[in-house]
Amino acid sequence: MDGLDGLRARVEAAVGDAIAAALAGLPPGDLADAMRYASAGGKRVRALLVLESARLYGVDPAQAMPVAVAVELVHAYSLVHDDLPAMDDDDLRRGQPTCHIRWSEATAILAGDALQAQAFAVLSDPAVGPAETRIALVARLAEAAGARGMVWGQAQDIAAETAGTALGLAATEALQQAKTGALIRFAATAGAVLAGADPAPLDDYATNLGLAFQIADDILDVTGSAEQTGKRTGKDQAAGKATFVSLLGLDEARARAAAMVARAEAALQGFGSHDAAGNLRALARFVIHRKT
Amino acid sequence: MDGLDGLRARVEAAVGDAIAAALAGLPPGDLADAMRYASAGGKRVRALLVLESARLYGVDPAQAMPVAVAVELVHAYSLVHDDLPAMDDDDLRRGQPTCHIRWSEATAILAGDALQAQAFAVLSDPAVGPAETRIALVARLAEAAGARGMVWGQAQDIAAETAGTALGLAATEALQQAKTGALIRFAATAGAVLAGADPAPLDDYATNLGLAFQIADDILDVTGSAEQTGKRTGKDQAAGKATFVSLLGLDEARARAAAMVARAEAALQGFGSHDAAGNLRALARFVIHRKT
Repeated sequence: MDGLDGLRARVEAAVGDAIAAALAGLPPGDLADAMRYASAGGKRVRALLVLESARLYGVDPAQAMPVAVAVELVHAYSLVHDDLPAMDDDDLRRGQPTCHIRWSEATAILAGDALQAQAFAVLSDPAVGPAETRIALVARLAEAAGARGMVWGQAQDIAAETAGTALGLAATEALQQAKTGALIRFAATAGAVLAGADPAPLDDYATNLGLAFQIADDILDVTGSAEQTGKRTGKDQAAGKATFVSLLGLDEARARAAAMVARAEAALQGFGSHDAAGNLRALARFVIHRKT
Repeated sequence: MDGLDGLRARVEAAVGDAIAAALAGLPPGDLADAMRYASAGGKRVRALLVLESARLYGVDPAQAMPVAVAVELVHAYSLVHDDLPAMDDDDLRRGQPTCHIRWSEATAILAGDALQAQAFAVLSDPAVGPAETRIALVARLAEAAGARGMVWGQAQDIAAETAGTALGLAATEALQQAKTGALIRFAATAGAVLAGADPAPLDDYATNLGLAFQIADDILDVTGSAEQTGKRTGKDQAAGKATFVSLLGLDEARARAAAMVARAEAALQGFGSHDAAGNLRALARFVIHRKT
């Protein structure tokens, strides 16, 4: 994963540039500060999936970078809204106060809204490629982020918590495939879409990676500390929420995550020893070995 | 305006179809219900601006309708979020309980988020026209809705209220040109964009219309009743908020709105007696004579 650190730094800079563009000409203020704050940092897994899947198909990195930025902006907006008191009510994120704690709920809602709009603005950048490609990515991102994707997953999560009913394994998988998985699938298939290739192998990779990612998250919620993860841990357990750990136990959850990473790696077989495939495999292993 | 009633009904149906598409295959639930609820009804001024500006340029209504739907979905999402307790804290909208009252804050936040995503999904509909046109509309809608447009205006509005400082006339105009005006300008120029024509005359029309619309809103907040307008009135005054009425007085506000409608009508001179130009002029007069 060391080879990906340079890429991460470039993503960080590109996200900063996109926010600066969104705010160009505006006077300083809470909205601008909150948008910068909320979009900075993080593991950039989704961006790396876009960039490495693009490299797999020989796509110019200059085309892929705006797509990587767009998916990070959607991810950032979703964290800001999910952290709100009416949703998951989190006060800590990446070791810092969440947006509504640092500013206000109103600013957090608005910053999230503007980040989502900016994601689509970034996708319309001519650098991404022909208009056909850009509009296809808009359609896919809207689907992944919307009422049948990420938002649906979060709504199911909140509904289950509100109702006090712990979901079963199948419902939890479906929920997570929407909440976390849809955006990860968008990111990992973006390279194929940019190249006009069949996204099926990358979709298979991403489906397994997305679930492994969420299982790892659930494990970290039990085994990690706030200091280590930068967010409050133990929350799911305290809320009596169904997680892969509560459903399967810690050992079985770990085994399942490892099996899914193996399947994710296997889905890339057709790409052989391509350097980018190697990085995508490393990324899959990283998501279950990460500490944050 | 009677000639526009049929169009309104078609917009209503098309918005319903877009929501159904966004929810296709999903089980029923609060998110789905809230999205339907929040996107139904209203004056559909923005949609009519899209449809009539398109007709002005001879654009096929089938191309314009998804654009009309997209702008209504963004408008609907903005109302749901603006009504939240952390924002304008409104419990009544279109004579009905607002989304967070009817369901919950979490559902209102998520329904708004999904409506915004769906707006971009709808714009990617091939029926709109060539990919170049669709991606241009995506870029324009993202700009109008985002951190330099609608969201910026709402953030300024909230910031002024939080600080307890009443803005002056110039700042109030700038705020409203973003909060309400940006989306109205997107809508009214959409016809030109669809036709590949210069959007300048329609932009001039829309800039004046947008301000007239907001002045009329401020007047209704003072002179209207909740029964008549379907939302709580007298709120701005009670909050000590700068409005065009508090800044100019009722008579001067009325005179200014009428002058702006006259300028909006004048901006359409080049289109002569085209039937759609007649409707756009009627729409401009409607916004200051409406009762809701």
